[in-house]
Amino acid sequence: MTDHSAMGPFLQDALNLLGPDYVIKASEVLRQYEQATFTTEQKIPAVLLPGNVTEVAKIVRLANDYRIPIYPTSRGRNWGLGSRVPVQSGQCVIDLQRMNRILDFDAELGSLTVEPGVTFQQAVDFLKDQHSDFLVSTIGGPPEASLLANALERGDGLGPLGDRARFCCIQEAILPTGECIRTGLNAFDGSLSRHLSPSGPGPAIEGLFFQSNLAIVTKMSILLWRRPPHFQAFSFFIESQDQLIQVNREIRQLQQLGVVGPTAFSLWNMYRFLSTQMTYPWSESGEKETTPEEILQQLPKSIRSCKWVGFVFTYAPTRLIQFSQKRKIKRALKPHAHKLIAVDPISAFVMRLARKPLRRLFHIDVDTLLTALHDEPVFLGNTTTPTVSSIYWRKRTPAPASWNPERDRCGISWICSAVPYDGTHIARVTDLVETIALEHRLEPMCMFFNMNQWYLKTFIVILYDQEIPEEDARAKSCHDRILDQLAQEGYTPVRLGIQSMDFAPDDPAYLELIQKLKGTLDPNDILAPGRYDFRRAWQN
Amino acid sequence: MTDHSAMGPFLQDALNLLGPDYVIKASEVLRQYEQATFTTEQKIPAVLLPGNVTEVAKIVRLANDYRIPIYPTSRGRNWGLGSRVPVQSGQCVIDLQRMNRILDFDAELGSLTVEPGVTFQQAVDFLKDQHSDFLVSTIGGPPEASLLANALERGDGLGPLGDRARFCCIQEAILPTGECIRTGLNAFDGSLSRHLSPSGPGPAIEGLFFQSNLAIVTKMSILLWRRPPHFQAFSFFIESQDQLIQVNREIRQLQQLGVVGPTAFSLWNMYRFLSTQMTYPWSESGEKETTPEEILQQLPKSIRSCKWVGFVFTYAPTRLIQFSQKRKIKRALKPHAHKLIAVDPISAFVMRLARKPLRRLFHIDVDTLLTALHDEPVFLGNTTTPTVSSIYWRKRTPAPASWNPERDRCGISWICSAVPYDGTHIARVTDLVETIALEHRLEPMCMFFNMNQWYLKTFIVILYDQEIPEEDARAKSCHDRILDQLAQEGYTPVRLGIQSMDFAPDDPAYLELIQKLKGTLDPNDILAPGRYDFRRAWQN
Repeated sequence: MTDHSAMGPFLQDALNLLGPDYVIKASEVLRQYEQATFTTEQKIPAVLLPGNVTEVAKIVRLANDYRIPIYPTSRGRNWGLGSRVPVQSGQCVIDLQRMNRILDFDAELGSLTVEPGVTFQQAVDFLKDQHSDFLVSTIGGPPEASLLANALERGDGLGPLGDRARFCCIQEAILPTGECIRTGLNAFDGSLSRHLSPSGPGPAIEGLFFQSNLAIVTKMSILLWRRPPHFQAFSFFIESQDQLIQVNREIRQLQQLGVVGPTAFSLWNMYRFLSTQMTYPWSESGEKETTPEEILQQLPKSIRSCKWVGFVFTYAPTRLIQFSQKRKIKRALKPHAHKLIAVDPISAFVMRLARKPLRRLFHIDVDTLLTALHDEPVFLGNTTTPTVSSIYWRKRTPAPASWNPERDRCGISWICSAVPYDGTHIARVTDLVETIALEHRLEPMCMFFNMNQWYLKTFIVILYDQEIPEEDARAKSCHDRILDQLAQEGYTPVRLGIQSMDFAPDDPAYLELIQKLKGTLDPNDILAPGRYDFRRAWQN
Repeated sequence: MTDHSAMGPFLQDALNLLGPDYVIKASEVLRQYEQATFTTEQKIPAVLLPGNVTEVAKIVRLANDYRIPIYPTSRGRNWGLGSRVPVQSGQCVIDLQRMNRILDFDAELGSLTVEPGVTFQQAVDFLKDQHSDFLVSTIGGPPEASLLANALERGDGLGPLGDRARFCCIQEAILPTGECIRTGLNAFDGSLSRHLSPSGPGPAIEGLFFQSNLAIVTKMSILLWRRPPHFQAFSFFIESQDQLIQVNREIRQLQQLGVVGPTAFSLWNMYRFLSTQMTYPWSESGEKETTPEEILQQLPKSIRSCKWVGFVFTYAPTRLIQFSQKRKIKRALKPHAHKLIAVDPISAFVMRLARKPLRRLFHIDVDTLLTALHDEPVFLGNTTTPTVSSIYWRKRTPAPASWNPERDRCGISWICSAVPYDGTHIARVTDLVETIALEHRLEPMCMFFNMNQWYLKTFIVILYDQEIPEEDARAKSCHDRILDQLAQEGYTPVRLGIQSMDFAPDDPAYLELIQKLKGTLDPNDILAPGRYDFRRAWQN
């Protein structure tokens, strides 16, 4: 239990440590920190902004001394899963955004060592400034998100290093009792591979720091990939479940054979596709909410019978290999998919010339398509904006230049589950999500990404408007039903929002071990209590 | 401390549980279990052979009841690092070889679920029997080694899934207190991806079970890769450090671009090469030990000036891609390497026809070469024998049909360190190893493998004859000097033998955490005390 009378002295000590600029108690600022992209009730007593690892360690020790729970956040862009709002009330937010230094760059081998506050955009810009051929695996989310925290949360990037948590080396962390620990090979003085290999000899304790409340990671090396000389993209549409199963089988086989890489194949249902192509048809519907099914009528006639849109990307070291890949993919997809478009430098040139007829005949917006698939693809280490701006989908005002979904009260809930790499499962998940969302009069939006050749992740996003009375309750019910139903069908979530941290493993021994580990590492229970520790299911 | 009077009742209870066939106290058998490939002093009081997971759990509970330390082993083929000998005396060996069932096979997505006793050969044979296109990543070591235990020890396979610990899903383990825990997605009832994704939501506690004494893993899914339609191999020689740096840079770049995959590039120094090509020249030297430098004179003149031999393998989905890969590799290597040979079906056919002139002119044994690089390459999911039989290198009698290095008192010590993917480091490690080994009058044998595009692992093997008086002490001194010297230069070991378990991380917070975790998970300190827990450096 938190001793509330301790808060004053704790904050006073923090003030003495950090200075008045970096201890925030002003209620209007705290209210901002308390906003997520869905309604939350949690209250935050204060926000502390340490500027370096020593200050972080000292704050953690103070938190132990005074038994004040603290909740670290790096950039707070965990949209749809809780932003920077603690799982429980009464936790002081430790905002690490001031720690935004790029500490090291191995320009030969491709590794970037960063503090928690370094953003994707910052890393992308840095590599550009260095004229480096190395790329960071970027995300479909906000460019201002933390590179380190996203990997730590097992966030998903795109391209060969898309499974971001597997391509990083945690080097340093502050334990819940305040000790600074060097991890991985960095625990050994002078180890030359500490920024290249994720673990040293002995148990991989670093695994405990992913999706957890067992440490504050303060230094991480992010492995980089080399810009491929040749890149091509394919887009296509799918009408039926049979086609889906065929397409998925073909692509999976191409991935098993190395033609398609990890996180380079993506399937979206049409609702998700629509949300990135247009804004909600408020004016068409006379400013009234319309049914999701009616919204689908906004699709061009030529693809109105389709259920999914797919994207595949390939990387090639030579033109010849690119050519062979293209032939393979075309052969695999042609019999099953519709409107297959291959985008490479030549076809992009031709498409630009034929901009107008393409729009007229096929309802294709060439410029949008080419930006995403050719000019600045997120699959090629660029940050992205169109998928991000869709968070304003149900807002009645257009997305502003500077996004702030919490301030603008956008409603976003995310669900992320593991799905075997099989078309029948994709169809089943899509059906389930569509059924539940339509019952809730919300657009069901599903995406699937190939994490590797064995399983996919599905990202389900529920977009709404927090300003519309009752819509939050509807969205919450929709979110909870989908999460539960998916899990029951075997599609276990692999990321959890702060509202779902009671989604616990069924195995009692697993739960007990998590509880024991938390007790051992954090005896005073001060670090982000409730976050990924499944405490609601603990035996007491 | 072990209470020795408790041993009798413990073994009696174990006997009641397992039956007399599976509790071994016969001293001649225990002596076999006490043999490693280097001299050890540890005594083993008994060997228990449980037949299923329930029996394992019960033994662990008995061990806790009686405070008897136990030491699990699966197939005991950890040659060079301690075989099945416990780190300390007085530990009862729990031999899991009876648990040798293949529990599940996902023939569509490529995943094999096994018990600890399943061997590489068993898995290879199983996949052949199933007429499956999937391959298991095999090792250069003995085919009778445990598939599960090798991954758990972070053993290294070959081909795209060579970093074996990264391509497996621990599903079930017995904790040191006897609870059976379901891990990863398997902790969630009915999760469909439990054999495909290594971790579920929340901290990756599974990481604690690699190279550790924190659990007995009883069920693991091994991810499989698909047989590539086209495979080719290249071998070449390198004379100077300059050439080495160039070759390494070229190959690394080809790997960054996807032409060469992980664990598909390997460099050996000439001593290692020789040990796989011939037996120790006892007869040539009049049955006397000769200096390692003189042994190099056994190399054909044409390659006597070389310092390294290299191998590169590529996999291709189409002939066209294979052709382009070949051109790329030839262009990259031709200016820097000697005697570049490309082996593919056509060149293999030609080489077989030209068997005799090749032997005469270039001292190439076509059949040996083609077995390793074309017919049954270990890089294509086959088990291997030539590198394994080299363990008899310094024995005066030839390797028997059925290897047993412990029985035959072969001397083998392994060292495995992480090395940045850079030619200067390869040269420095080779120099260091050669200098120290030559001082000890032992053949310095180094191999390097590309784990990924960022770092290499070096495998250093010291081969000798345990039956020669004093040779063991010499080998031990050589081993310890190399390990320490490499670590001091920044090439930290990533696997440890039972004789090196006191090689501890320098960071005190790291050590303290390991100690705390051991105390939490294993309060009675009964599971493999001393194994990868760095206890010699613990603060008490």
